[in-house]
Amino acid sequence: MSFFTEPVLDPRARDLFEAVRDLPIVSPHGHCDPRWWAEDAAFPDPAELLIIPDHYVFRMLYSQGVPLSDLGIGVPPEDRNAREIFRCFARHWHCFLGTPSREWMEFTLYRTMGVDRALSPETADIVFDQITEKLAQPEFRPRALFDRFDIEVLATTDPANDPLSHHKAIAASGWHGRIVPTFRPDSLLNPARPDFRSEVSRLGKLTDQDTTTYAGNLEAIRLRRAAFRELGATATDHDVPALATTWLAPNEIEALHARASKETLNPDEALAYYGHLLVEMAQMSAEDGMVMQLHVGSRRSTNSRILAEHGPNMGSDIPVAVNWVQGMDALLNRVGNDPALRVILFTLDETTYSRELAPMAGHWPSLRIGPPWWFHDSPNGIQRFFDQIVESAGYFNLAGFNDDTRAFLSIPARHTTWRRGVCLHLADQIERGRLSKQDAERLAPYLCRDQAAEAYRLG
Amino acid sequence: MSFFTEPVLDPRARDLFEAVRDLPIVSPHGHCDPRWWAEDAAFPDPAELLIIPDHYVFRMLYSQGVPLSDLGIGVPPEDRNAREIFRCFARHWHCFLGTPSREWMEFTLYRTMGVDRALSPETADIVFDQITEKLAQPEFRPRALFDRFDIEVLATTDPANDPLSHHKAIAASGWHGRIVPTFRPDSLLNPARPDFRSEVSRLGKLTDQDTTTYAGNLEAIRLRRAAFRELGATATDHDVPALATTWLAPNEIEALHARASKETLNPDEALAYYGHLLVEMAQMSAEDGMVMQLHVGSRRSTNSRILAEHGPNMGSDIPVAVNWVQGMDALLNRVGNDPALRVILFTLDETTYSRELAPMAGHWPSLRIGPPWWFHDSPNGIQRFFDQIVESAGYFNLAGFNDDTRAFLSIPARHTTWRRGVCLHLADQIERGRLSKQDAERLAPYLCRDQAAEAYRLG
Amino acid sequence: MSFFTEPVLDPRARDLFEAVRDLPIVSPHGHCDPRWWAEDAAFPDPAELLIIPDHYVFRMLYSQGVPLSDLGIGVPPEDRNAREIFRCFARHWHCFLGTPSREWMEFTLYRTMGVDRALSPETADIVFDQITEKLAQPEFRPRALFDRFDIEVLATTDPANDPLSHHKAIAASGWHGRIVPTFRPDSLLNPARPDFRSEVSRLGKLTDQDTTTYAGNLEAIRLRRAAFRELGATATDHDVPALATTWLAPNEIEALHARASKETLNPDEALAYYGHLLVEMAQMSAEDGMVMQLHVGSRRSTNSRILAEHGPNMGSDIPVAVNWVQGMDALLNRVGNDPALRVILFTLDETTYSRELAPMAGHWPSLRIGPPWWFHDSPNGIQRFFDQIVESAGYFNLAGFNDDTRAFLSIPARHTTWRRGVCLHLADQIERGRLSKQDAERLAPYLCRDQAAEAYRLG
Repeated sequence: MSFFTEPVLDPRARDLFEAVRDLPIVSPHGHCDPRWWAEDAAFPDPAELLIIPDHYVFRMLYSQGVPLSDLGIGVPPEDRNAREIFRCFARHWHCFLGTPSREWMEFTLYRTMGVDRALSPETADIVFDQITEKLAQPEFRPRALFDRFDIEVLATTDPANDPLSHHKAIAASGWHGRIVPTFRPDSLLNPARPDFRSEVSRLGKLTDQDTTTYAGNLEAIRLRRAAFRELGATATDHDVPALATTWLAPNEIEALHARASKETLNPDEALAYYGHLLVEMAQMSAEDGMVMQLHVGSRRSTNSRILAEHGPNMGSDIPVAVNWVQGMDALLNRVGNDPALRVILFTLDETTYSRELAPMAGHWPSLRIGPPWWFHDSPNGIQRFFDQIVESAGYFNLAGFNDDTRAFLSIPARHTTWRRGVCLHLADQIERGRLSKQDAERLAPYLCRDQAAEAYRLG
Repeated sequence: MSFFTEPVLDPRARDLFEAVRDLPIVSPHGHCDPRWWAEDAAFPDPAELLIIPDHYVFRMLYSQGVPLSDLGIGVPPEDRNAREIFRCFARHWHCFLGTPSREWMEFTLYRTMGVDRALSPETADIVFDQITEKLAQPEFRPRALFDRFDIEVLATTDPANDPLSHHKAIAASGWHGRIVPTFRPDSLLNPARPDFRSEVSRLGKLTDQDTTTYAGNLEAIRLRRAAFRELGATATDHDVPALATTWLAPNEIEALHARASKETLNPDEALAYYGHLLVEMAQMSAEDGMVMQLHVGSRRSTNSRILAEHGPNMGSDIPVAVNWVQGMDALLNRVGNDPALRVILFTLDETTYSRELAPMAGHWPSLRIGPPWWFHDSPNGIQRFFDQIVESAGYFNLAGFNDDTRAFLSIPARHTTWRRGVCLHLADQIERGRLSKQDAERLAPYLCRDQAAEAYRLG
Repeated sequence: MSFFTEPVLDPRARDLFEAVRDLPIVSPHGHCDPRWWAEDAAFPDPAELLIIPDHYVFRMLYSQGVPLSDLGIGVPPEDRNAREIFRCFARHWHCFLGTPSREWMEFTLYRTMGVDRALSPETADIVFDQITEKLAQPEFRPRALFDRFDIEVLATTDPANDPLSHHKAIAASGWHGRIVPTFRPDSLLNPARPDFRSEVSRLGKLTDQDTTTYAGNLEAIRLRRAAFRELGATATDHDVPALATTWLAPNEIEALHARASKETLNPDEALAYYGHLLVEMAQMSAEDGMVMQLHVGSRRSTNSRILAEHGPNMGSDIPVAVNWVQGMDALLNRVGNDPALRVILFTLDETTYSRELAPMAGHWPSLRIGPPWWFHDSPNGIQRFFDQIVESAGYFNLAGFNDDTRAFLSIPARHTTWRRGVCLHLADQIERGRLSKQDAERLAPYLCRDQAAEAYRLG
């Protein structure tokens, strides 16, 4: 008998939830490491599995005055004390009350890992030992968990120049799990990134193209997209800190590219270059059918000391306001009327749900709205998403759910949060006379599983 | 027995709703065509009545990949196949789930038109035939429906230079229906509009004034306002894409006007000119008592191909963020303290409800907040409106409801959506101890009918 | 038996509320006048107590066309007719339906003052007489009410150069009430304020420092901070109309200071100067432990006629949008990683709750989010606050409640509104399976009392 008790669900939503709770998982966007399934090695200790890589977790502890080094961050693995890190986490467990991280972690601990008592400062050691014991067992290896989680397909996110060796190894292994890469070309497209020039140059070697010319560069990118598709990729992904698509005259973009290959562009030039390249990517997507994901509006690494000491993705990325109408103008007016193009938009600026995204997706044939992202991938965030989007965009301009996580163990928990949120929303719609029970029963599995597969052309 | 079943309403709100459901309709702002009541001809076929003119409907279909030509848009009437258009609509009927369009359409089909079965791809032809049959009957002509809908007064929106011949014809006909025009002078005020110069020139002829001088132009506008008032108008309406009221020195505005009459102003100049003219309009309103409506923040025709092929108002207008505090500064500091002035503000940027509009309307004697507009004229939109506005502005700085529609048949449905929303809000206030039952019972008819008449001085 | 009936509270929240309703009040930020407790004189008549100083009240009446002079504003006390003012208020009592002002006033009238009938135009005189009678009684004097309200500690807000004579008098009187000052240095820091130069000069005299030099000025500020701390102050407060912290090179800020002491800086320079001084204040706070409050985004005195006739704080301050990420960048990157620093952020732009403030407070060790402020200090505002903040920031990066009021009699009402809001929120969390009953029972008193004391280091 499991210690885990599912959180209360509004009785009105229970029947709907029963019918979707155990649907297979479609995970079309996330940041899991393909190496896990290529090698199928045991996961390391609880700290390295659950705390050190989870920016949701360590940012909260840091906000409460815990130095990152106490969590093993910036500490060489051999100098880390996993048990002490876990104890520190347990001492601050109350800080997560009310956050989705707590819900995901409880699901992971009590249900997935079968921990048999509540985490608290007092039980830290016992919980640590129980997890450790489980991680040593074959049924907690990556491939076994993939099956147990009933994952139909999982997409990773991979740099455009990545050799995709783990993906190739998975394919070569004969294992049945479907794990596909996603083409992430930010370093090739955005001259503001520190590795832009070296990556463009590497791309040239990798594809045997002259990427110092604009035409050669585009052709090289086309080849990499094809290489990703060969391994099952159906989508591209773009991290766009400031959205400003633009369409330059051929001689302008060629001149910019020539300069960008040799020297650092000023910020305006870099923005224009990236804005133009995003439109090129949209055009390629209309041609090759790869779904284009735009993740817009995260101001990266706002804490410069943490950036200097620990690098990016350390919990200080903060959302900024986004102007989608202006930012997408050039892209949409160039290819947005083409139903062969599919662009999925992700925002951290919830004010754009009803003001921009829903009206835009309710007009342009190419647009879909991605699920609540990052800070908003939570019960309240999901509720706001539906409440503010559906009335203008309907349900069929959405893109289903994706977990967007690098914490593999949290995947079932995150999909459960979404499925509960969907069913609560639909139950509320029934109660308010806005959907018939029959329509809600049809929408539930569509929103919980089918739509993600359909939106990402993973069918 | 009607097929139509009213959507479920929260039991707490039922008594309140019973008392307002059948109140007469006051419709102080909208875009119906006065010709309908001047001529009282039968409405055309179902496609031309319900689909082709309704941008809520065809934008959703377009977003799902349906070419506009499949809906008869841009197709000469003689080449349209109304039945095929209606079938296409029926095939996509599920796309409207969760949208107010679906609720309005159901009300129209099942209740107003008496269709006796649910619309679906399978029933498209039968539904089409039933509507067609009804439209041939005298009780479905414009005047008969006006009576059946129990419309007390309905305002149309008419260009400032419109000869108002349909309004005159209605008046001359002796028919009892009260249909009044609204003075819409955008083309005279905003030099960014393509017909600005020709309309200013036409205004001169129409009023026998020299509109090439600034003073002559103002006098001509004054005369047109008076002409509208003679036919019952009590309000003006302004479509303000970017709000920036300003007050220029006399020589500046005179010079700008002289140039604007001859050549194209640059965007900054055009903005300043329009910003100044809006303040002039506010001053005229303080003098002549016409209620000034400002509809702010719709970025028009963002899809340039659709604009080129089909013209404006084709579903690609998208809201943008608005700064009301800055944008209204010049107007308010010139006339805003005058209680004789009434300005009704409409926003598509819901973030301004609690941050700007409610605090502003809770201070300036001239300001009222218009009801949720366009994308937000929906059950959730109405709830957000009350939740975010009432605490700072109270109920008596609002302007009641207006349907703002060009879809005449949807008017009862839209007022019903509002009335349900009002009653749900009030029921919720009672339950939370924020209003007594007695206060709520007094507010309900005020918000559902009386306030619109009072706010628009239609009494 | 009291006429007052507590507003209905959701049954699910009642047990939680019972346990916190009568907790002592911690009021760590507000604008009460320390003179009241220094002198302990009877409060004046009902109009001067409840209407003339309450901008929530008179702004609503003004918005409804009541001239401020009808409310005694701008009228010499000897020419005011308190009874007429109160009658005018009573005639407009319905305008406050749905606003927190109405709830606070009802609590004050019926519960605190013991008025025994409902306020209405008809009962205005009787209510006026009853309040007048009460105000003459010793148990309605400031110290007696302070005790009756069970206020543990109350902080006032005092200009940096204030001699704090009332605070000293309270301390010298031997009275047991704990009333502490708060250091408010805006006029010393922000050159855009009209009294900047005179106050800097006065500071020099007060502290015997040469404030014409930058170093002398900082030292003088340090001395004033210490003087405030000696009288119990634990916090500073900053009214920041436009947030733009910055860090200038020593020679730049010294040169700016030298010029600012002699002449008027242009707006950009003034902004930079103030932006730099705010960082200096943060550094001093990290050193001396004073909690730094930033109240950001109120555009002051937008009605220029009211400002000219009546001065500031007359109801025309309106919120504007705020960019916290950019605005706090320099401050945070200079001292934000120091857990010794505590900065409490207050916003009037609710869109920043989930987009900026919660993610920021969930990362930076120095940041806490202040409670809903001003227009948002209301039942719905409190609900939006929790709904949009807790999922990213948790509960332990908040700062408890403060009433921020100059209306002393409304303090119990305001804390009651907060406590009801907290309990409703927690009850809702329990129902949705997001908190256990036990966790909610622990959080309730923490959020209602303890957290304010802890956040402001008043322990």
